[in-house]
Amino acid sequence: MFREKIKVLDCTIRDGGLINNHGFEFKFVRAVYKALSDAGVDYMEIGYKNSKRLFSSKEFGAWKFCDDADIRKAIDGIESNTKISVMVDVDRVDPEDILPRKDSPAHMIRVASYIKDIDKAIHLVNHFADKGYETTVNIMAISKALDNELTEALQQLESESKAKVIYIVDSFGSLYQETTEFLIKKAKNILKTKEVGMHAHNNQQLAFGNTIEAIIHDANYVDGTIYGLGRAAGNCPLELLLGFLKNPKFDIRPILDVISKEFIPLREKIEWGYIIPYAITGILDEHPRAAMALRNSDKKENYREFYESLVGEDEE
Amino acid sequence: MFREKIKVLDCTIRDGGLINNHGFEFKFVRAVYKALSDAGVDYMEIGYKNSKRLFSSKEFGAWKFCDDADIRKAIDGIESNTKISVMVDVDRVDPEDILPRKDSPAHMIRVASYIKDIDKAIHLVNHFADKGYETTVNIMAISKALDNELTEALQQLESESKAKVIYIVDSFGSLYQETTEFLIKKAKNILKTKEVGMHAHNNQQLAFGNTIEAIIHDANYVDGTIYGLGRAAGNCPLELLLGFLKNPKFDIRPILDVISKEFIPLREKIEWGYIIPYAITGILDEHPRAAMALRNSDKKENYREFYESLVGEDEE
Repeated sequence: MFREKIKVLDCTIRDGGLINNHGFEFKFVRAVYKALSDAGVDYMEIGYKNSKRLFSSKEFGAWKFCDDADIRKAIDGIESNTKISVMVDVDRVDPEDILPRKDSPAHMIRVASYIKDIDKAIHLVNHFADKGYETTVNIMAISKALDNELTEALQQLESESKAKVIYIVDSFGSLYQETTEFLIKKAKNILKTKEVGMHAHNNQQLAFGNTIEAIIHDANYVDGTIYGLGRAAGNCPLELLLGFLKNPKFDIRPILDVISKEFIPLREKIEWGYIIPYAITGILDEHPRAAMALRNSDKKENYREFYESLVGEDEE
Repeated sequence: MFREKIKVLDCTIRDGGLINNHGFEFKFVRAVYKALSDAGVDYMEIGYKNSKRLFSSKEFGAWKFCDDADIRKAIDGIESNTKISVMVDVDRVDPEDILPRKDSPAHMIRVASYIKDIDKAIHLVNHFADKGYETTVNIMAISKALDNELTEALQQLESESKAKVIYIVDSFGSLYQETTEFLIKKAKNILKTKEVGMHAHNNQQLAFGNTIEAIIHDANYVDGTIYGLGRAAGNCPLELLLGFLKNPKFDIRPILDVISKEFIPLREKIEWGYIIPYAITGILDEHPRAAMALRNSDKKENYREFYESLVGEDEE
């Protein structure tokens, strides 16, 4: 029943960090790493490798920078086969800061890029591949990519990059199954020598459904987060993904445990998941930033006015 | 872009009534009816027609019985093209209580039935069709139906029943897209003279995704509820459905309004939507009743223990 090639990457701490300026406490990060390790999850993405010359470590927590010492502090002493992944953004990382794979606690580096920056992404990802890391390129805001540009980007990634996996990233949570199918088939068709991955957002409660759709069409790398934690509407819930995949190496119970113990209390402090403002930006295929701003205003439940403000914007 | 034949039925009050013993106040029901009418939704299901000889009107609210006088009290004076639907359960209705269509405020009667009761359902639905109502049969707990029994039931419904629509009901929220596709194709293939409908539950956050899947495979009747209100994990959110369907007759704004004004305050009083206990019963293809009991106990967040209690049950 199960497809052994499917790899599950949990990005709870990385994507969830976008809510709290990457300020998760070490105790929480260790609890997540232990749960993922016990559950048999393949990868844990622990944060971003951002340049400290561009961002202040007073303003942001440890997981904005992912110093090797901090990663070690989070994982040391926990028995695990779960590999550590870190994400880098084009133009925000100092590649020379990153040690060779053999000297680092990280196994994988994922380069997040918009279509327009794909040349920079290829340059970066090849640099990290040469340092010995498993690598991916994650194409963000895929719903805004023009088809001819996406074709060219995928062709370049196939012929010029050393990345092992290319991810389709539904940044705005606006994809329906039919477009997910179209994009995954298109990527599989061009990327003859690479794997395809799916990273979904849950604005329209379709993160899990679109991830299943991607799996049906042969994406083998799929992202989830525990209890769907992630920016705005959050991500594909890892617990549902483990329930769906039939690989006996996975055990859902440690994930259920850590949700009870760590995520239910956290939910009292920070907000994520499906609510109407994120549904609206998903339906309209827009970045959730306007919805996040609304949630921090005194009009947080004024949905109609928010909707009308977005559809009333003059774009011509 | 849009498919004119698709009809949207909102069952907020009917399915939501399973949480509060059908006790919604008239003010709330009127607000929902007004919003649905302004939004252009085709049908509003307002409750069940249950026999007062079987259930006490002291124990249950008005929408367990849907007396014609109560329906009129909820809708009179509101301009609307939205048709009223009521649901009946096999063995719980007195068919003779129900007046002919021309004397009733209801336009449609939906008969909910398990596969085993399909003969009774056909008898009932033909009775109501003869009284002039639009009619449907909703096959509940479809995930537990054996394929040969489902084939026979669908063949009987096609040849013996006067129902206009046959619904696939994912009572436990356990279907994935592939099985939804299988079931809808199977129903379409047998039901040559009828429409097929989809009623989904959201235990695995797949209610909307499975409803889209059903639409892709030519189901033309789809159920939603405002903000997903419904028993346990709730249903396909109507606001997402209206965002997806491109029929210009629909207007999402009245729905956004009524969520702000009525559903956000209601959320403080009753619980519905995705939480881990409902995810667990969905993954395990079980009725949510054990999860609902858990939520009313002092172990409401003990997910691992709950999961282990369900997988540990001896079924042989």
